[in-house]
Amino acid sequence: MSSSTATHSAATTLLARYRAVRKATTQLCAPLSPEDLMVQSCPEASPVKWHLAHTTWFFETFVLREHVGAYKPFHPDFHWLFNSYYNSLGDMPEKKLRASFSRPSLDVILAYRAYVDAAIDRFLQQPVVSGAIQRITLGLHHEQQHQELIATDIKHALFTNPLHPAYMDTATGKKNDVIAPPLDWSRFSPGLTEVGFTPSPAANDVFAFDNETPRHSVYIAPFALANRLVTCAEYLAFIDQNGYTRPELWLSEGWTALHSENWQAPLYWQRDSETKSGWCIYTLHGFQPLEDLSETPVCHLSFFEADAYARWAGYRLPTEFEWEYAATHSVPAAGTEANLLESGNLHPTPASHASGLQQLYGDVWEWTQSGYTGYPGYKPLPGALGEYNGKFMSSQVVLRGGSCVTPATHIRPTYRNFFTPGTRWQFSGLRLAKDVIR
Amino acid sequence: MSSSTATHSAATTLLARYRAVRKATTQLCAPLSPEDLMVQSCPEASPVKWHLAHTTWFFETFVLREHVGAYKPFHPDFHWLFNSYYNSLGDMPEKKLRASFSRPSLDVILAYRAYVDAAIDRFLQQPVVSGAIQRITLGLHHEQQHQELIATDIKHALFTNPLHPAYMDTATGKKNDVIAPPLDWSRFSPGLTEVGFTPSPAANDVFAFDNETPRHSVYIAPFALANRLVTCAEYLAFIDQNGYTRPELWLSEGWTALHSENWQAPLYWQRDSETKSGWCIYTLHGFQPLEDLSETPVCHLSFFEADAYARWAGYRLPTEFEWEYAATHSVPAAGTEANLLESGNLHPTPASHASGLQQLYGDVWEWTQSGYTGYPGYKPLPGALGEYNGKFMSSQVVLRGGSCVTPATHIRPTYRNFFTPGTRWQFSGLRLAKDVIR
Amino acid sequence: MSSSTATHSAATTLLARYRAVRKATTQLCAPLSPEDLMVQSCPEASPVKWHLAHTTWFFETFVLREHVGAYKPFHPDFHWLFNSYYNSLGDMPEKKLRASFSRPSLDVILAYRAYVDAAIDRFLQQPVVSGAIQRITLGLHHEQQHQELIATDIKHALFTNPLHPAYMDTATGKKNDVIAPPLDWSRFSPGLTEVGFTPSPAANDVFAFDNETPRHSVYIAPFALANRLVTCAEYLAFIDQNGYTRPELWLSEGWTALHSENWQAPLYWQRDSETKSGWCIYTLHGFQPLEDLSETPVCHLSFFEADAYARWAGYRLPTEFEWEYAATHSVPAAGTEANLLESGNLHPTPASHASGLQQLYGDVWEWTQSGYTGYPGYKPLPGALGEYNGKFMSSQVVLRGGSCVTPATHIRPTYRNFFTPGTRWQFSGLRLAKDVIR
Amino acid sequence: MSSSTATHSAATTLLARYRAVRKATTQLCAPLSPEDLMVQSCPEASPVKWHLAHTTWFFETFVLREHVGAYKPFHPDFHWLFNSYYNSLGDMPEKKLRASFSRPSLDVILAYRAYVDAAIDRFLQQPVVSGAIQRITLGLHHEQQHQELIATDIKHALFTNPLHPAYMDTATGKKNDVIAPPLDWSRFSPGLTEVGFTPSPAANDVFAFDNETPRHSVYIAPFALANRLVTCAEYLAFIDQNGYTRPELWLSEGWTALHSENWQAPLYWQRDSETKSGWCIYTLHGFQPLEDLSETPVCHLSFFEADAYARWAGYRLPTEFEWEYAATHSVPAAGTEANLLESGNLHPTPASHASGLQQLYGDVWEWTQSGYTGYPGYKPLPGALGEYNGKFMSSQVVLRGGSCVTPATHIRPTYRNFFTPGTRWQFSGLRLAKDVIR
Repeated sequence: MSSSTATHSAATTLLARYRAVRKATTQLCAPLSPEDLMVQSCPEASPVKWHLAHTTWFFETFVLREHVGAYKPFHPDFHWLFNSYYNSLGDMPEKKLRASFSRPSLDVILAYRAYVDAAIDRFLQQPVVSGAIQRITLGLHHEQQHQELIATDIKHALFTNPLHPAYMDTATGKKNDVIAPPLDWSRFSPGLTEVGFTPSPAANDVFAFDNETPRHSVYIAPFALANRLVTCAEYLAFIDQNGYTRPELWLSEGWTALHSENWQAPLYWQRDSETKSGWCIYTLHGFQPLEDLSETPVCHLSFFEADAYARWAGYRLPTEFEWEYAATHSVPAAGTEANLLESGNLHPTPASHASGLQQLYGDVWEWTQSGYTGYPGYKPLPGALGEYNGKFMSSQVVLRGGSCVTPATHIRPTYRNFFTPGTRWQFSGLRLAKDVIR
Repeated sequence: MSSSTATHSAATTLLARYRAVRKATTQLCAPLSPEDLMVQSCPEASPVKWHLAHTTWFFETFVLREHVGAYKPFHPDFHWLFNSYYNSLGDMPEKKLRASFSRPSLDVILAYRAYVDAAIDRFLQQPVVSGAIQRITLGLHHEQQHQELIATDIKHALFTNPLHPAYMDTATGKKNDVIAPPLDWSRFSPGLTEVGFTPSPAANDVFAFDNETPRHSVYIAPFALANRLVTCAEYLAFIDQNGYTRPELWLSEGWTALHSENWQAPLYWQRDSETKSGWCIYTLHGFQPLEDLSETPVCHLSFFEADAYARWAGYRLPTEFEWEYAATHSVPAAGTEANLLESGNLHPTPASHASGLQQLYGDVWEWTQSGYTGYPGYKPLPGALGEYNGKFMSSQVVLRGGSCVTPATHIRPTYRNFFTPGTRWQFSGLRLAKDVIR
Repeated sequence: MSSSTATHSAATTLLARYRAVRKATTQLCAPLSPEDLMVQSCPEASPVKWHLAHTTWFFETFVLREHVGAYKPFHPDFHWLFNSYYNSLGDMPEKKLRASFSRPSLDVILAYRAYVDAAIDRFLQQPVVSGAIQRITLGLHHEQQHQELIATDIKHALFTNPLHPAYMDTATGKKNDVIAPPLDWSRFSPGLTEVGFTPSPAANDVFAFDNETPRHSVYIAPFALANRLVTCAEYLAFIDQNGYTRPELWLSEGWTALHSENWQAPLYWQRDSETKSGWCIYTLHGFQPLEDLSETPVCHLSFFEADAYARWAGYRLPTEFEWEYAATHSVPAAGTEANLLESGNLHPTPASHASGLQQLYGDVWEWTQSGYTGYPGYKPLPGALGEYNGKFMSSQVVLRGGSCVTPATHIRPTYRNFFTPGTRWQFSGLRLAKDVIR
Repeated sequence: MSSSTATHSAATTLLARYRAVRKATTQLCAPLSPEDLMVQSCPEASPVKWHLAHTTWFFETFVLREHVGAYKPFHPDFHWLFNSYYNSLGDMPEKKLRASFSRPSLDVILAYRAYVDAAIDRFLQQPVVSGAIQRITLGLHHEQQHQELIATDIKHALFTNPLHPAYMDTATGKKNDVIAPPLDWSRFSPGLTEVGFTPSPAANDVFAFDNETPRHSVYIAPFALANRLVTCAEYLAFIDQNGYTRPELWLSEGWTALHSENWQAPLYWQRDSETKSGWCIYTLHGFQPLEDLSETPVCHLSFFEADAYARWAGYRLPTEFEWEYAATHSVPAAGTEANLLESGNLHPTPASHASGLQQLYGDVWEWTQSGYTGYPGYKPLPGALGEYNGKFMSSQVVLRGGSCVTPATHIRPTYRNFFTPGTRWQFSGLRLAKDVIR
């Protein structure tokens, strides 16, 4: 077997994973109707039906068309119709047009998924070149990103509906049954360290996006990181103490955004005179009184809100390297489990009273103070896939750690998520950091 | 029986009409999927599902809630959810949000229709007050307006889809099987005349909107009106002779619109190097070569394009009163039938060679040069229904005559349609007029 | 002498008028600095320096270049630089760029004026063809329109300045020294009448714009017109009784404008807790307490506000033909003088207690309910001058009667001013009308 | 004398510098008229008159009001009128309103400058506390920033004028009299180093902005830096080889900006069929053929254009720390002098053939790939001055090295300029960098 051909067992292992990931996507749609899958309620979002098609297009375009000689595409137009942003592959429909894709119907999209799945299945029944293994692996991580987007997009879509229906009627996980522990700090010593991804086959930790590489040296000044995420109760104090009307707390660009979009609280918070707290919060389980969620991490914050809160509290946001350094140089809090997609909570849950850093993974994406740029020596993937991450390296901010709708196998210490600083439709919150004077 | 109570037979007659009109609405949706009914592709349009609900809401709000004592509304939220623009009834969702109404699902909307239909049915089984008769009659004309909107909105929705699917695969009517007759003129003498609606029970012509009244005197100067509508072939000559690049042909506001929206032809025309003419036209039957439609009336023009064409041709648009005067003082062309919704053509068809004014009704709405204002002594309907027509009396232009998607019982000589002058998604075209020097 | 050549005396008379009108323009600028003349504070306005240049350009372009064989233009670039909107003459700078015309400097513009004035002076020293007489006459009316624009534009410019300086420190005319008479009505009988301009050399009334012609027949239904304009005190009652928050009073387009521009009162009204009335009003003499102006006609209203006020008051706006009919079929109120530019008030003044229709001319432009369109048989002037009035005949509303900044020789019964219905920077107000039931 | 009181000699030295810097500002205005000083031609720019006032306001607000007990402000309204963006000091006029400040007139602004200058003069005749020395020093650097803005803003203002007048008719410096040397590279070894400002009184290098501190450790990977800036000739090759139509060269945000603003070349480049190169470039000396400037550094590039050029060339932009490391660890090219404001060129000039890094200071601001954020441990100045730099730390990119309109005493190795990545009205260009494989 040549070094570039994967073993049969590698292909078999990958096939099992392929089936599981693909199935997880359609399972996310189980509570939704074909009409629900049509809604596109903000510029950041896409209709869920489009996600179902686009993730399939990814395998067809980057695996089947390239690696299966006799592959016959499902439909001649889908190659451009479901391209998202890969200019190298030719023109594509404007993003806002995705809401007009009543045709192809959901039935056809599901047939498309089945068709491509069958082709991948056949393909992985036999040894394949490692390049194809890498492409399929990338495709599965791509699919997991879109699982997360399905959750965030449908949350926005259902919230936008004036009737505010729930995605699921009942919450499946814990909420306010514990009180979040007091704010505490983990201190980290200064030093030259390395950040970024290096494959470690032993740990079966063999995938990362190009933007997590190359691993490289950075100097870390002494700092301390909060043991848990900021809670709704803490954030409410910021609101109550006029956090949204004091310009000195805000970056200039944030102050402008606050006014132009009339922010008075996180996205999905609404005044509600019928609750004890005076607020209710829309979740994938419908509206809930703030008092029932006060110990859960605050989420759906823009970078500007996270930054303003930290300034108000007398602290700051961590850099992405401080976060990564802490994540790789600390012992996880004992007896706690990350609140990720598979937990079924679909909403952040309170920290436990275990000692050490908690909630590093899951719950909410944590805004850092780091702009999203390429690491020293960064090289995008060759060809069209080079557009996957590299071309967004301006005016975006790095977030770390995953959220309650991130699949468990999709997150790792070196993972870099990125959004523009005004973004709020993601499950995004913050963890405080501070300098340590030597 | 008091004068305000309709006879049983009046109610029975109305019920038959009610059933027919309501059924016609759902029949229009037969070729469409629940996903199709979700699309809202331009600010003028609404999703078809919304039309199905809103027309039902109209009967519930203005008939059942007011005239049926024990009426229990289908759903407590629908009263505000499906309000279109009646401020007197309270707040309503923003128009652009209608695309997010995945819930209520189509099934629920159809159940809503059935529920209200059953209630109206019961109501009309017995004598009812004339006020209710009038309201139901108004509701049926309202429903017919929305039938027309369903056709125009779904045309835009399917065209916006990058795959450009057809509403129906096969055209059901004649197209270019005749050559349009030469342009000819009907002359009309000057004089004081009356315009506007007067009920004429004998003619069973008993309904008009408030904006068609009161009947009043106007003076008409001598004029002539073209015997038929302007055709695609004629309009193509205007394009070919640089009609869209000569500012002297255009109103200032139109010249600005032309540039900001990059108009180079009517809506739905596209360059197509594979057709003989170099153009194809999207219809509800899909794209067709211009050469197959060249004798049909040009449609999907803004007022500005109609006005510019008339100036280029050396003529002008008629006033709305000239049009009405001609329609009521001329003998219809013999042996021709108006091309309205029931013909099933769903597109304008060529004029015949019969003598006299043709195509007065159906085919395309005819832009006039008249701004839309109230007639002398105009009184809107009392209450919320006063918002139906009256509050739009600024910056809109009157169109006359109906189009190929207007129901036959919905058009009459005094009917005033109105849109802002840049509107193109309607089946709108023009008939030329000219002054006659005495 | 051929019929197309004016007499020497006609030229001499015109020259005197030319000198007077041109001088009046520069006199309007006397209180202003070169920096003041640079300001362009809203899209409707131009810098005053531009008005000084453009009015001169009009004579150079339409008189000197066409009628003086050896004429050498002042500057080769001015022909396109100071073109306003005449597309037939070629491209021109975007309107918003006028604020960047620091060069040519004011000195150069004044030299341009002197140069063209001298050329016209020489030209009119001898008999000239009647076509040139007509062009110069048109140019003088054009100049007078720009005198009015200078007053309205500089008012907006100085108001926009955060220091709100006055154009003149002292009011020169009467203000609240009289109490406006009670609202009363003049009734007019129905009938066929003629409207529009016909030259009447005997009355020395020989000029009108093309849009005032041809004179034509219209039928007038019986109506009554208020004896005076609506006052600030009356309008304040409309505000105090929630006029700006009751949608049923507003046209739909007006309601949208009200919200998007946050209208709560006429332009130039500001809340002021230090005045007795709680309001102050910016005038060309600076801010004044509303209580000092309460009897003066309300001004700087949009059509939408005028229309909403009339509806609230239980009346309506007149049509432009009702206004013209009244103006030509009624005896002017005795002993009153129109408050026009020459009065020096620069602001509306209260009506007197004389009987009959007052304030027909001057004070404020009166919004009518008539859309601005061409009269039957309307022909624009030939050539580029055809763009003067004709190309604006869409989405605009007619105003009648002139304002306190209209020159006295510039107004007449047939004069049609026009603006889009949301326009407020003009001295625009209203007079009530009502139907009379026969 | 307490440690917080400066010696008399320190005050005297500062006074001399104060006089020189203030005089340099007004000298920049010598070629301009009061009308020129009114123009505000893009959202980034302010009228020059405003700069004259605001820089004076800075001394009045932060020195005289705080340190001179009996100080009587020049005008009671100027405190808010000429506030730029310091929210802590209260409300201020919207930036776009600055173009409406015809009052105060230029005479008044110049009197304001003289009044404040006299007060500072008196203040510095005697020993002053070191806090005041620091404030005045800051004020002078602030004034120098605005000198640079005056040059960039008036360049845009005069270019926007359709006549495109020159600021000065004659160029005062060298242009294309030398050929730029070939592209060459200086290599730098990796290592842990320190960046940021530390006061070095011996070197009389005692001022830096808060954003240049604290000095801190960073690790530098091996890299190489180009010996000179990219030239117009080199950039023209990028244009000619379709640089503006190849999406793979552009960041996604840049590709969007390119289309929405229709970029086809750097700002101030225009096609010109009458030049040999087919292009001309607007400079402060008026339009010049590109062929006369081909060896000069390209300028008025956005970050996106600089980044796309570097990608096209096969290289990349440096980080801000690579730039600073190179600037402090290399020997300046012999016999060359930085092209800064005092040279009088007012435009970039070609590199010489001396060996080593050239053009590090002056000519054009050099875009780096570094987002603008606070250094580890960054503390803004206390009070309102904390808004000077800190609140802009999002979505901006760092530029280094100064430009041809930067005053010589205003630039240093640690200086961090910052603009949003789409900014083009600054004299901004690029120097290439590349990785070095160990």
